[in-house]
Amino acid sequence: MTKIDMSEEILSAKKNLGLNWEEIAKKVGMSPVFLTSAALGMNSLKKDDAEKLCEILSLPSEVALALQAFPYKKWDQTIPTDPLVYRLYEVVGVYGETIKEIVHEKFGDGIMSAIDFSLDIDKEEDPKGDRVVITMNGKFLPYKSW
Amino acid sequence: MTKIDMSEEILSAKKNLGLNWEEIAKKVGMSPVFLTSAALGMNSLKKDDAEKLCEILSLPSEVALALQAFPYKKWDQTIPTDPLVYRLYEVVGVYGETIKEIVHEKFGDGIMSAIDFSLDIDKEEDPKGDRVVITMNGKFLPYKSW
Amino acid sequence: MTKIDMSEEILSAKKNLGLNWEEIAKKVGMSPVFLTSAALGMNSLKKDDAEKLCEILSLPSEVALALQAFPYKKWDQTIPTDPLVYRLYEVVGVYGETIKEIVHEKFGDGIMSAIDFSLDIDKEEDPKGDRVVITMNGKFLPYKSW
Amino acid sequence: MTKIDMSEEILSAKKNLGLNWEEIAKKVGMSPVFLTSAALGMNSLKKDDAEKLCEILSLPSEVALALQAFPYKKWDQTIPTDPLVYRLYEVVGVYGETIKEIVHEKFGDGIMSAIDFSLDIDKEEDPKGDRVVITMNGKFLPYKSW
Amino acid sequence: MTKIDMSEEILSAKKNLGLNWEEIAKKVGMSPVFLTSAALGMNSLKKDDAEKLCEILSLPSEVALALQAFPYKKWDQTIPTDPLVYRLYEVVGVYGETIKEIVHEKFGDGIMSAIDFSLDIDKEEDPKGDRVVITMNGKFLPYKSW
Amino acid sequence: MTKIDMSEEILSAKKNLGLNWEEIAKKVGMSPVFLTSAALGMNSLKKDDAEKLCEILSLPSEVALALQAFPYKKWDQTIPTDPLVYRLYEVVGVYGETIKEIVHEKFGDGIMSAIDFSLDIDKEEDPKGDRVVITMNGKFLPYKSW
Amino acid sequence: MTKIDMSEEILSAKKNLGLNWEEIAKKVGMSPVFLTSAALGMNSLKKDDAEKLCEILSLPSEVALALQAFPYKKWDQTIPTDPLVYRLYEVVGVYGETIKEIVHEKFGDGIMSAIDFSLDIDKEEDPKGDRVVITMNGKFLPYKSW
Amino acid sequence: MTKIDMSEEILSAKKNLGLNWEEIAKKVGMSPVFLTSAALGMNSLKKDDAEKLCEILSLPSEVALALQAFPYKKWDQTIPTDPLVYRLYEVVGVYGETIKEIVHEKFGDGIMSAIDFSLDIDKEEDPKGDRVVITMNGKFLPYKSW
Amino acid sequence: MTKIDMSEEILSAKKNLGLNWEEIAKKVGMSPVFLTSAALGMNSLKKDDAEKLCEILSLPSEVALALQAFPYKKWDQTIPTDPLVYRLYEVVGVYGETIKEIVHEKFGDGIMSAIDFSLDIDKEEDPKGDRVVITMNGKFLPYKSW
Amino acid sequence: MTKIDMSEEILSAKKNLGLNWEEIAKKVGMSPVFLTSAALGMNSLKKDDAEKLCEILSLPSEVALALQAFPYKKWDQTIPTDPLVYRLYEVVGVYGETIKEIVHEKFGDGIMSAIDFSLDIDKEEDPKGDRVVITMNGKFLPYKSW
Repeated sequence: MTKIDMSEEILSAKKNLGLNWEEIAKKVGMSPVFLTSAALGMNSLKKDDAEKLCEILSLPSEVALALQAFPYKKWDQTIPTDPLVYRLYEVVGVYGETIKEIVHEKFGDGIMSAIDFSLDIDKEEDPKGDRVVITMNGKFLPYKSW
Repeated sequence: MTKIDMSEEILSAKKNLGLNWEEIAKKVGMSPVFLTSAALGMNSLKKDDAEKLCEILSLPSEVALALQAFPYKKWDQTIPTDPLVYRLYEVVGVYGETIKEIVHEKFGDGIMSAIDFSLDIDKEEDPKGDRVVITMNGKFLPYKSW
Repeated sequence: MTKIDMSEEILSAKKNLGLNWEEIAKKVGMSPVFLTSAALGMNSLKKDDAEKLCEILSLPSEVALALQAFPYKKWDQTIPTDPLVYRLYEVVGVYGETIKEIVHEKFGDGIMSAIDFSLDIDKEEDPKGDRVVITMNGKFLPYKSW
Repeated sequence: MTKIDMSEEILSAKKNLGLNWEEIAKKVGMSPVFLTSAALGMNSLKKDDAEKLCEILSLPSEVALALQAFPYKKWDQTIPTDPLVYRLYEVVGVYGETIKEIVHEKFGDGIMSAIDFSLDIDKEEDPKGDRVVITMNGKFLPYKSW
Repeated sequence: MTKIDMSEEILSAKKNLGLNWEEIAKKVGMSPVFLTSAALGMNSLKKDDAEKLCEILSLPSEVALALQAFPYKKWDQTIPTDPLVYRLYEVVGVYGETIKEIVHEKFGDGIMSAIDFSLDIDKEEDPKGDRVVITMNGKFLPYKSW
Repeated sequence: MTKIDMSEEILSAKKNLGLNWEEIAKKVGMSPVFLTSAALGMNSLKKDDAEKLCEILSLPSEVALALQAFPYKKWDQTIPTDPLVYRLYEVVGVYGETIKEIVHEKFGDGIMSAIDFSLDIDKEEDPKGDRVVITMNGKFLPYKSW
Repeated sequence: MTKIDMSEEILSAKKNLGLNWEEIAKKVGMSPVFLTSAALGMNSLKKDDAEKLCEILSLPSEVALALQAFPYKKWDQTIPTDPLVYRLYEVVGVYGETIKEIVHEKFGDGIMSAIDFSLDIDKEEDPKGDRVVITMNGKFLPYKSW
Repeated sequence: MTKIDMSEEILSAKKNLGLNWEEIAKKVGMSPVFLTSAALGMNSLKKDDAEKLCEILSLPSEVALALQAFPYKKWDQTIPTDPLVYRLYEVVGVYGETIKEIVHEKFGDGIMSAIDFSLDIDKEEDPKGDRVVITMNGKFLPYKSW
Repeated sequence: MTKIDMSEEILSAKKNLGLNWEEIAKKVGMSPVFLTSAALGMNSLKKDDAEKLCEILSLPSEVALALQAFPYKKWDQTIPTDPLVYRLYEVVGVYGETIKEIVHEKFGDGIMSAIDFSLDIDKEEDPKGDRVVITMNGKFLPYKSW
Repeated sequence: MTKIDMSEEILSAKKNLGLNWEEIAKKVGMSPVFLTSAALGMNSLKKDDAEKLCEILSLPSEVALALQAFPYKKWDQTIPTDPLVYRLYEVVGVYGETIKEIVHEKFGDGIMSAIDFSLDIDKEEDPKGDRVVITMNGKFLPYKSW
């Protein structure tokens, strides 16, 4: 079973059961962001988590195996077109060098890891319009010299 | 005076005075991220802030005028090469559709604004290696139908 | 049911019934432009509107569900080839910086939203050749500093 | 004198005189959008208009000659990065096929001319936030068969 | 029936009947170039012409309907690879600015329409090798100011 | 002297003398299209023609030498942006396969040469709007087998 | 039968019969390079040669017809990735301007035809490692002026 | 001295002395193709050859040093535009897979080296038009397994 | 049987038998890297090795034949997106010119062969986190002059 | 002083002193690869190392400061053209998925760091031709779930 078929099975079961990612993630005991990324084929789950997810959604063991497979992370569009995703790309374009300046000032020469990394999405209620809060948390990796 | 010349003047004065962005930003009374992005030519400053910044760095009024000009936000590399900036691009590639799923689940059809938006960068101390924490906060904009 | 299948069903039913977008939109009580964009899979409809559209076209409830799904807005060709669509791209190329100048002059630093946005298409009769009138109306979003 | 030098001279004179495009356009007797596009080098002016503009800005006759030269309309970035200009590109991506449907329904097979064309930009005041109104008006050109 | 299926049906019927485009075009009463472009899905035919073409090729009415549909003109390769088509692209590259100079000298600022346009292909016999003669004829469209 | 400097000298002399390409070409005894393409650096002239052109424009012998140099034909924009030049690119996109069909039908498998080739531009007066007539004439080159 | 199906049939028959291109080409009476290029769909064969090839490989007449069809020469990868093919691309990159210099020195302004052209591939035995010898032979086409 | 300056010096001296590549190469005792490629900055010369070349052209020792520097072989245009160079690119596109078939048939799995490689250009006189003969000779490198 | 089908068969058999590449490679008597690259369709195996591999995995002789076919090495993404593969691309970007400097210093003008080449991957245990060690070993090929 | 000026100064001083990277690196007490990458502007040096390097090459303190600046790692060509560098890109294309398979088999889901990373280049003498040995050593970073 490919990751693509796996995702379709999960999305379809989720819809039929009327569950949302937050509820599912709570039951599995993980962050909704990580769980969703695994369900969409962009991360792998450990055996236990994969099986728990399949149990919740009444999906067969093949799906659990597909969830454990290590993905080839691939995206098609160099520049994303969907407005929600594009705005994130735009933020990288507008603030990329600024982030570089500030990280270097605070940490020295190095980068924020995208592997030892977590991401959360919250809703901040606001009378002038609710706000999306995205928090990225990655280990600082200093450049090694040798 | 172009934004490029302005940035060079600011970076040079900052280096000579031995100041960092945090100190300068505190004196101006702004976030270091926004101030840096304006100094790098990616945002404009209000008159007062521009003048205060020039006062701190002993820069002429031309720089203050250039800081107030509305920038044409332009980046050259469709896919950034610098590892620190690329990792941010990679995060958008890996988690873009996940963010879309979760935002739609929490807010409905719409996007996070990249205009009514702020960004903060913090250091989280950790014995296993300090962590970079980037927080994006943007107004949710629902799609309008008509 | 994918958005692509949904669009095919709608276009086919519309053709068989001999209706045009203006007539359908009037019955649903929406703008023909927004309704068409939803039928082509580029916007989502609210439950009531989706069901009304399906009723008019005698389409099953699956189509109504697909119309309510939040779309991933994707276009394939970086530069469109169809002459009608290309001319719009050309207008952005030729007048983009001019629009930037005038909007900044009238409103300050910020953008026209493409989300809190509406678009209308009218026919202006003219003995020297009728004219297409496209009106875009988007909320001005000022850049926020912080 | 190249169009690039010409634009710099005009922008500099305009700034020094503290004039805006609306005021200048009124004096020349043209639309501010067209006048700005000519000043930015994307359109040519007739002799009289070019000379009137130079008179208003106290610019030499070379500038007037450069304004009359027929431009090579060139833009560098296939996909614009500046958020204000990108949103216009996005509108073409999201609504391109919709506009095609509606124009074909109202006019038959053909296109909206981008040559026999005008463009206006207005401000619509709104307590929930002012709105940018962009109106494109182009002659419908039916495809010719032979 | 899509334009692609339509083209296949027409090419197959044409081959089986042993007809060539010149003969078919003569019977329909149109130029062979325009008729071929419509058969390949790049232009639409009026109802009468579409039906006459289907009669000649003994094709069903679905094909006639597909011929009347307004096409989305799409080409895949930014730079064509087939040598015959590439040479035309090369001519535009080598002579593009020359054509611009001469057209502007003869007509003023404006363009040759590609919509109010016709194209003919002739054979000029020559003892040193026959020659292909391609004639493009498009309405001059002067830039409008406003 | 580079071809770029050469072109600038020629364009400047032509402007100062108030001549147009047709007049110059007549005096040299060549087609205005070919002469313009050589003046813009896209073709080379024979010694006599180069010297005659320099005589007419009172240009030094360096320019005549540069005109005789064999050019590296280079264009920067894969897809041209100027509307006049883009329309020619569009014609290749829309009619490329049609031209291939008709040429193959009339001549067999082969191409129209872009080297043993000439191009003319004429004005066809028309009360509904004058028309641009571009005629390409290239030797048919049959594919050789071996 | 498409060129792609044709190629598959030929490659499969060739494998089953245990023949190689040299043997087949000898029997048909052609160069192995041209015959292979036709079998791969990049050139067309004359009726006799196509039928002889099908006789040798015991293939049906449809294949012979497909071999006679004039191909649309299309390649997918702007820069080839296969190392053998890439090295040829690299040779063009490294030696392109050198070839231009030498050809112009020997022949004047013009090109080597890729249509009136043949290509041979030979093996040169060498104790230090055999060598591949590729010989291109194309008619010189002088640029025409007019 | 950069390779670019070196090339300019050599081309200029060669022109002033009225020498051609064949004559120069004969005097140095090398192939004109290799010598030209080194003069254009795409290959390096051994000390003796570099000095001999500079002696012939009366150029200073800096040029000889620049000729010995190992070049970074760089070309700007993914797809060359100059017709002479493009035809070579086209040959790779049309015959690439054919060359692969024949080389594999004659030599097994491997490639023709572009490093242990030589290239010659000859003129074949022909009453129907002289022919350009390009011969590539590269060592066959079999893929190694391990 | 295509290389793609072959790879699927091998990966499926490997999974069902619960074998890993190291074990399989040991049994075949080859390096796991080369064997994996052949199984993924990027290299060909000799007859004996191909048959031994199929015996181990109980696969039919068709798979053995497909393993012996000489591959067309093709990759889709100019810049790989998967983080593991991208990091290798990044290493080439960051250290490419450095490697060039050092190789030229140690060996003279030439390259490291990617054909007469082997690659190994090892695990270096480290209490601060295990390390991946990739060793490339390629024959130095000096540029030939002629 | 920019990194580009810094590199020029270092390369020029190194040439004049007749030193090579190995000798310089030994004196500084670092790996020649890392030192070269810093000299070419792709890595930063610690204060002491920067000053030692400048002492060895008799360069002013500005160079030492430029060596300590944190670089923006930028490369221009998506696909490198120089044959030595291209071969490394090719290795990533051919063996990328193989490396992914083997690393995942040995380490689990994760990547080899390109930051906590070192690279060595050695010469392996071989009577059949010396060999280049490139060793990459990067920390394995397992994907984190949360």
